[in-house]
Amino acid sequence: MTNPTNDPSRRSFVEVAPDSHFPIQNLPYGVCRPRAGGSARCCTAIGDRIVDLAALESLGLLPDISEQPVFSVSSLNAFAALGRTAWSAVRRAVSDLLDVDNSVLRDNAEWQQQVFSEQSAVDMLLPMEVGDYTDFYSSKEHATNVGIMFRGVDNALQPNWLHLPVGYHGRASSVVVSGHPIRRPSGQKMPPDADTPVFGPSQAMDFELEMGFYIGPGTEVGQAVAADTAEDRIFGMSLVNDWSARDIQRWEYVPLGPFLGKNFATSVAPWIVSLEALEPFRCDGPEQSPAPLSYLGGNARHAFDVQLEVALTTAQMPARHVLSRSNFRYLYWSMTQQLAHHTCNGCNVNPGDLLASGTISGSTADSLGSMLELAWKGERPVALPSGESRKMLQDGDTVIMSGFAQGDGYRIGFGEVTGEITSA
Amino acid sequence: MTNPTNDPSRRSFVEVAPDSHFPIQNLPYGVCRPRAGGSARCCTAIGDRIVDLAALESLGLLPDISEQPVFSVSSLNAFAALGRTAWSAVRRAVSDLLDVDNSVLRDNAEWQQQVFSEQSAVDMLLPMEVGDYTDFYSSKEHATNVGIMFRGVDNALQPNWLHLPVGYHGRASSVVVSGHPIRRPSGQKMPPDADTPVFGPSQAMDFELEMGFYIGPGTEVGQAVAADTAEDRIFGMSLVNDWSARDIQRWEYVPLGPFLGKNFATSVAPWIVSLEALEPFRCDGPEQSPAPLSYLGGNARHAFDVQLEVALTTAQMPARHVLSRSNFRYLYWSMTQQLAHHTCNGCNVNPGDLLASGTISGSTADSLGSMLELAWKGERPVALPSGESRKMLQDGDTVIMSGFAQGDGYRIGFGEVTGEITSA
Repeated sequence: MTNPTNDPSRRSFVEVAPDSHFPIQNLPYGVCRPRAGGSARCCTAIGDRIVDLAALESLGLLPDISEQPVFSVSSLNAFAALGRTAWSAVRRAVSDLLDVDNSVLRDNAEWQQQVFSEQSAVDMLLPMEVGDYTDFYSSKEHATNVGIMFRGVDNALQPNWLHLPVGYHGRASSVVVSGHPIRRPSGQKMPPDADTPVFGPSQAMDFELEMGFYIGPGTEVGQAVAADTAEDRIFGMSLVNDWSARDIQRWEYVPLGPFLGKNFATSVAPWIVSLEALEPFRCDGPEQSPAPLSYLGGNARHAFDVQLEVALTTAQMPARHVLSRSNFRYLYWSMTQQLAHHTCNGCNVNPGDLLASGTISGSTADSLGSMLELAWKGERPVALPSGESRKMLQDGDTVIMSGFAQGDGYRIGFGEVTGEITSA
Repeated sequence: MTNPTNDPSRRSFVEVAPDSHFPIQNLPYGVCRPRAGGSARCCTAIGDRIVDLAALESLGLLPDISEQPVFSVSSLNAFAALGRTAWSAVRRAVSDLLDVDNSVLRDNAEWQQQVFSEQSAVDMLLPMEVGDYTDFYSSKEHATNVGIMFRGVDNALQPNWLHLPVGYHGRASSVVVSGHPIRRPSGQKMPPDADTPVFGPSQAMDFELEMGFYIGPGTEVGQAVAADTAEDRIFGMSLVNDWSARDIQRWEYVPLGPFLGKNFATSVAPWIVSLEALEPFRCDGPEQSPAPLSYLGGNARHAFDVQLEVALTTAQMPARHVLSRSNFRYLYWSMTQQLAHHTCNGCNVNPGDLLASGTISGSTADSLGSMLELAWKGERPVALPSGESRKMLQDGDTVIMSGFAQGDGYRIGFGEVTGEITSA
């Protein structure tokens, strides 16, 4: 039975361009604040318009999913915590309200006034209160590339990599929404050929193309999430840029892992796309060999075909130049495997927790997800149409990541996550 | 000028035994819930009694530090965020109210009824909502011991260790208060001499004796905390047990650091002791050579003489057996150096964030802060008076950590952090 909200022929009375990220089949979740004033509230998007979910809720147009209002608040955590049945009920109701054949909202100008606004009339905010942020390292291509650069071809992948989704805890406090300027971090680093470290601005600012998912219903300390039920706890997916200062990272990371080389900022897109909207794009992940231990389940039918792109602008090059094209489906370890692994020891998760994939690199030179890989440790500077070149990011550079799943005549888009490097 | 709240001759009308952790010179902060029912509220302790700060606040007996009540809530975050002036004002007011020469509370039985309760009449809760938890690795003795065990004497300390306080992000969601049972985690591990990993309960459950500090006023993303003002942001200190599953940790930790070997639980004591109460015990840290870079400041006069103890009970040995005695002053890197380092790249901190020290080991065999070191990787099992021995913790073992600063006729105590290992 096809989910009617995913029907490719469904159309809204709101006009949606064919290449829009936000057709009626998407309905991503976000949090916005009207620029004209007013409090933060939850929203979705259709075409170029913002749909105020708090307004729909207060008009009584949404199903009765909670005793408390969940959308007239400044994060999606409360809604995420309600779980799949509530998510589906709201998605169905919003889809029906926006349907071209439904007169309820279509023919009520006063309600439309309360519900719709232009994207340019709101500021998009961080969609979730992130309690804990975990970053995985789940692209075999990325882990291999970095391994070759730092340890040579023969020791590229560590012995554990093919057996478990390697990950580490990141910093939740410095997760910022798209558009937040990224101040070049200072830190301690060991210059090449030096024998004492120095303190100063990073000279090796990098991006990492990632996607992440947010936890919906949480667990208790001591409770493991089985791989085959893990998707029940995934509220949705988003674009993530895991900014990295490679010189700081290189000096600090042994033996306890990345710390100040990463935790100055992590940017996320304002929109969270539900797995329900992505269902038509579900596909197999790469073959896993050796077979993972049973607690990890498999990655078959747990990948999604999401096309990803990294573009750059510079102070001298205002037009976007595409640096890389990749795909979420390249990841070796699936989200369900990541969540099952993360909780197999009883580590609890809470609504709003963010689990990111690690850099998503493909197998070709034009599908690499970091400047470290694209410029191969600085050995092959990336030439730009402006005549400039880059080994790493410069002040004034803006990185724009975007992604979408291409349907038949429509796109399930993730919007963008952008950030400009500003001076130290 | 001596701070009157620290005057060793000050006495309360509440009786306090000489070895009590909670004389009038201490006044630690915690959060409790009456067992008879009622909501969580902030409290302090004197002798065997709990002092209800929410009751003092509503009786108008505390200074006017905030527009909103800060103590009739379930965490100390709001109070911590107010900063040193507010902390000192409250400390002074509570000290004065409890003073033996002050009749206000001493002679008002009705108020006493509202304000005091027995420790046995309340449950102590997690004192802070921990947004982010960071764990350092600041004991040179511990880092050297672990380094010798895993890499040999010649490569014990990594090249960065003497230049910066190495640390990593831990898991905030699984920080639990003293008394919470610690379920033996399961996880993936590589058995000795095996060539494929297995999944199952950890066979290498360990404790780590640590202390931590909680952040008071927070910072913005991009803002560094200077070492010489770092103490303004330290709300207070507490005992921490950083439980570790060594077999899981050993297999997973390369290259991104500890993850599931740690994040199943971290126990904290219910009491937070202010730096103001610890001021008489301020002392120099160990000599640092080479001299740290200037952004780190120094550790002179940034250590505190706090005696620490780890004791064990087992199912067959109900009487406590002391495993180790250590001291907070042994730590090579100071709290101010940790915080200056953590924020030097613009990483922000929020009220309630927890920064722990790493295992605090001394230089002698009876001052080691983990079972890994005490039993030297299992080569020297620890003999117990019951006739049992331990290489690692067994189900039914309870670890009790405690600590105090010894004054002239009084102790500034930290209470205890305890946890019993329960079966997987």
